[in-house]
Amino acid sequence: MRATFMYGPGDVRVENAPDPVLREPTDAVVRIVRSCVCGSDLHPYHSMPAAEQGTPMGHEFLGVVADLGSEVSGLRRGDLVVAPFAYADNTCEFCREGLHTSCPNGGFWAAGDVGGAQAEAIRVPQAQGTLVALPGVEEDSALLPSLLTLADVYGTGYHAAKQARVRHGMTVTVIGDGAVGLLAVLSARQLGAERVILMGRHKDRTDLGREFGATDVVAARGEEGIAAVRELTGGRGTHAVLEAVGHLPAYEQAVGVVRPGGVISRVGVPQYEEAPIGFGSLFGPNITLTGGPAPVRAYLETLLPAVLDGTVEPGKVFDLTIDLDQTPDGYRAMDQRESLKTLIRL
Amino acid sequence: MRATFMYGPGDVRVENAPDPVLREPTDAVVRIVRSCVCGSDLHPYHSMPAAEQGTPMGHEFLGVVADLGSEVSGLRRGDLVVAPFAYADNTCEFCREGLHTSCPNGGFWAAGDVGGAQAEAIRVPQAQGTLVALPGVEEDSALLPSLLTLADVYGTGYHAAKQARVRHGMTVTVIGDGAVGLLAVLSARQLGAERVILMGRHKDRTDLGREFGATDVVAARGEEGIAAVRELTGGRGTHAVLEAVGHLPAYEQAVGVVRPGGVISRVGVPQYEEAPIGFGSLFGPNITLTGGPAPVRAYLETLLPAVLDGTVEPGKVFDLTIDLDQTPDGYRAMDQRESLKTLIRL
Repeated sequence: MRATFMYGPGDVRVENAPDPVLREPTDAVVRIVRSCVCGSDLHPYHSMPAAEQGTPMGHEFLGVVADLGSEVSGLRRGDLVVAPFAYADNTCEFCREGLHTSCPNGGFWAAGDVGGAQAEAIRVPQAQGTLVALPGVEEDSALLPSLLTLADVYGTGYHAAKQARVRHGMTVTVIGDGAVGLLAVLSARQLGAERVILMGRHKDRTDLGREFGATDVVAARGEEGIAAVRELTGGRGTHAVLEAVGHLPAYEQAVGVVRPGGVISRVGVPQYEEAPIGFGSLFGPNITLTGGPAPVRAYLETLLPAVLDGTVEPGKVFDLTIDLDQTPDGYRAMDQRESLKTLIRL
Repeated sequence: MRATFMYGPGDVRVENAPDPVLREPTDAVVRIVRSCVCGSDLHPYHSMPAAEQGTPMGHEFLGVVADLGSEVSGLRRGDLVVAPFAYADNTCEFCREGLHTSCPNGGFWAAGDVGGAQAEAIRVPQAQGTLVALPGVEEDSALLPSLLTLADVYGTGYHAAKQARVRHGMTVTVIGDGAVGLLAVLSARQLGAERVILMGRHKDRTDLGREFGATDVVAARGEEGIAAVRELTGGRGTHAVLEAVGHLPAYEQAVGVVRPGGVISRVGVPQYEEAPIGFGSLFGPNITLTGGPAPVRAYLETLLPAVLDGTVEPGKVFDLTIDLDQTPDGYRAMDQRESLKTLIRL
């Protein structure tokens, strides 16, 4: 099959690779129908050490079940399925708590002996717990882009809002106008937020944010951006701040706009380890810091119906569609901000 | 009157000072009956820069209303009252949310033009919102030590447990065997915790912790202590970790013993500003970090009945009683760990 590998900064290649096969009786093999490039794929695209051996890429996909291990029930060959960006057994104590990203039998795509999703096919460990069938959806359905967001960006935006305890009538700040930030806007509105202030500086993206329900847009960053949000909120800041970037300045911005007693909920993968959390930042004003890799599997059934009936269209974050062999162009387009999020059609 | 001032590390003096008087119509003046030395008073006792001018000390007191401003209602001269460690109007939007420590009309004792509580008397701003009357309690009641803990250490331990969302059946780790840590044990049990692991290495203190409901004691610290808690919890750590120390190693210990998806609730005043919060510490396992200065005023009415009827005896944390003029000895005794918490009787 063809599959995508990264060899170093800016060096993405689509190459021939062995077809995936079942290894465990709990596995499935899925022929991929749609995949995409994630904002988080750009972190290694900027900074990974160059290597002789390529790293498989991609963690978002939907596709058709091609093969099933003997212990997988509830799925059939030919089912169209979507997968969360982390596989999990969906039965352990962590999964039962909705924390599938900490499943002891789970893991991440494109790691260890599991391949990446920017490929023609993939081996799926813990298939029964991981894959969610999409009955009635055809392989060429116009819903596929929106359904694919359930693999990561929509569930991740939703996790940010859930962890921040967004509820009816609240004012919420969202930091970042990438796909996750925009879908955090959508999620905050779904959870009842009355006012959503979107901090982002790309007008085409913040316009989509407004379509998803943002009531205010702040293009300024740093101290100026913080001052603007404070001015919009009577000087106080907002109870919930959803941080969908992952760089330290975005965290500092979150600390600047959160209201005393409020919550900073991070879903942008932190590109730092140490940061201020003492009396002058989090402790003095009783700020709660939460978030992490989203257990999107936990939210799939919750978010699916409104996607299927067209109430929400999270797939609007895709503004470029390419073939698998064009994947390096997709990375380039997203890196140069020519594309918000690039869909790979197989 | 006589009042306590700190001039530098280890330099505490009780001196003559002007009697406090009403300044605002919302003020009261309280003649202090009981005060005490706080673990947090030891931070400046170790590290404050020496100064010509003394800093007033003390933020915990109960006493008798001696004078009342014209706009204070609900209180009378002669009332025995207890005060939280932060004064507040108890009517603003922050106070209504239970976040009295962020009241825009509030503040802290021994700061600005408000005196300290290790003194014969104190001016109380926002008296109506701040002071809680203790009807039926006599000035020489045996309940006074327990009632005094409502000013800070009991409410602070309770805040740690509340913010960690301790609930029925939970396993909780408490880090620190000072007065706040021990009362965090008591609070966790009151909120229904089934198992409380107390990390502390002073046997007399952890014995009191067992009396307050600790089911396990871990004397080891650092990696060894973390391993011991993990062994007690099937390798997983605990959902709630209450951090009642404030030094960086205690935070690192909290990160080490918290379960994925769990909460670290800090009430020890952080003696650091930067700390690890990235993928390898909080983000990857979806850990929530919360806590701050406790809005003890918010908890006073909740905690008072069980103190008044003797169901709980948080006053057991006091193991040394002194007169006001002996206050420097109280600091010394607490600093040298001869006293867990020192009561000042006036």
